[in-house]
Amino acid sequence: MRYKLIIAYDGTAYCGWQVQKTGISIQYLIQKSLETIFQHPIHLTGSGRTDAGVHATGQTAHFDTEARIAPFRLRGQMNALLPLDIRILDIVEVAADFHARYSAVSKIYHYHLHLDSIADPFTQLYRHIVRSPCDLSKMQQAIFHLIGTHDFTSVANRTDQCRATQGGVRTLFRLELIEQKGGIRLEFEADGFLYKMVRNLTGLLLSVGTGRIEPKDVITIIASKSRQNPFKAVPPQGLFLHKVCYEPCRDFKNT
Amino acid sequence: MRYKLIIAYDGTAYCGWQVQKTGISIQYLIQKSLETIFQHPIHLTGSGRTDAGVHATGQTAHFDTEARIAPFRLRGQMNALLPLDIRILDIVEVAADFHARYSAVSKIYHYHLHLDSIADPFTQLYRHIVRSPCDLSKMQQAIFHLIGTHDFTSVANRTDQCRATQGGVRTLFRLELIEQKGGIRLEFEADGFLYKMVRNLTGLLLSVGTGRIEPKDVITIIASKSRQNPFKAVPPQGLFLHKVCYEPCRDFKNT
Repeated sequence: MRYKLIIAYDGTAYCGWQVQKTGISIQYLIQKSLETIFQHPIHLTGSGRTDAGVHATGQTAHFDTEARIAPFRLRGQMNALLPLDIRILDIVEVAADFHARYSAVSKIYHYHLHLDSIADPFTQLYRHIVRSPCDLSKMQQAIFHLIGTHDFTSVANRTDQCRATQGGVRTLFRLELIEQKGGIRLEFEADGFLYKMVRNLTGLLLSVGTGRIEPKDVITIIASKSRQNPFKAVPPQGLFLHKVCYEPCRDFKNT
Repeated sequence: MRYKLIIAYDGTAYCGWQVQKTGISIQYLIQKSLETIFQHPIHLTGSGRTDAGVHATGQTAHFDTEARIAPFRLRGQMNALLPLDIRILDIVEVAADFHARYSAVSKIYHYHLHLDSIADPFTQLYRHIVRSPCDLSKMQQAIFHLIGTHDFTSVANRTDQCRATQGGVRTLFRLELIEQKGGIRLEFEADGFLYKMVRNLTGLLLSVGTGRIEPKDVITIIASKSRQNPFKAVPPQGLFLHKVCYEPCRDFKNT
């Protein structure tokens, strides 16, 4: 039986999703909880990695077992074993050909920016604090140039990997700037994301917002297909893997 | 010149508001930031203490200095020196007879309860997780018996102190149960609170909600003036000092 998990986590305490030698990972703890319950080795396949300090409200993963436990009971057992900053939100039995990574049709990431002059002591681990004034209408103009199908190599950090696989072409179905208490949230939906693409795109938009470059400059930057450009990736704590979609999500049809 | 500060803090990392030998306190760090700026010893008087792990969105304090710095600049300097989990929200110059504690006419505390079966990994340090089903209408009935002027000794933890000062009589102007994402928030407004009164009252209401006692039992419990009663104080992380009022707050006039 193949089970699909929907997982939320606060990434602050972890070295990221993937099992690594450098620290405790979220994948490792979830796998361990499953092995404790099922009493046999289990490999958990996530929809993709998240870096150290990145959060998730809707990461997905799958695993196989010959044992059968009702999903509702399994969820309770897993949440009893897991630390409070990792929660299993839902478990469903899926077909044997479902794959957490390859069956996904799109992913949604949110990036939270704090723009207020007074920081909020409760959200410092979940927002990137921007200290310069930010022109949101300029950011919005730049966003229009980013939506659609492009080679996003110039906003990826590991170009060798991109070239090795399918290249840097991805389709950004949706990129929305939403005002919220204390700042804004950027919502990204694409058929796939290159390594550090969301954090680089947010950094690029911040360069526009703070006036270092003009909105139309993002056209040249994307076309350059080179990471050697005047913007910095924003830090991990503002980033949330919001949802992995296995059927077309909200704005998928508009593309 | 006397300055009034309005302060927000995440209490997770601290031993509480008050300077203590057992750990780093919020009062200590704020005082130290002021001494760094003004270059002379400063005593900071808070509106009252908060325990280890208790948060504040509107603590107030005052201090005196002969130097003069524009409040806006002083706020920026303090926030630059303080850790990100302590923020100075506002500073105003006040009259010499203003006192953060004695001038207060009421205080507002919020207590957050998580009642959903799935915990939220992002709010575990800011909510108390209740694992038993909770009957909100029974809690609401009990609330009606608690509002008003009573001797609250049976919901205080240090009765000797209460007796030594003005006794345990306090006026609870307002106690509201407000539904919010994942659970409820209890809002308490009173002319003063006995030690651990909010956490004991919340524990008492939870005893009603989970069916261990009946709503009308709170009348007997309050009348007993004894802490020997069937409820437990809830833990600190759900508690927020929301506001200290120096003029009648929203519901003050209704009493």
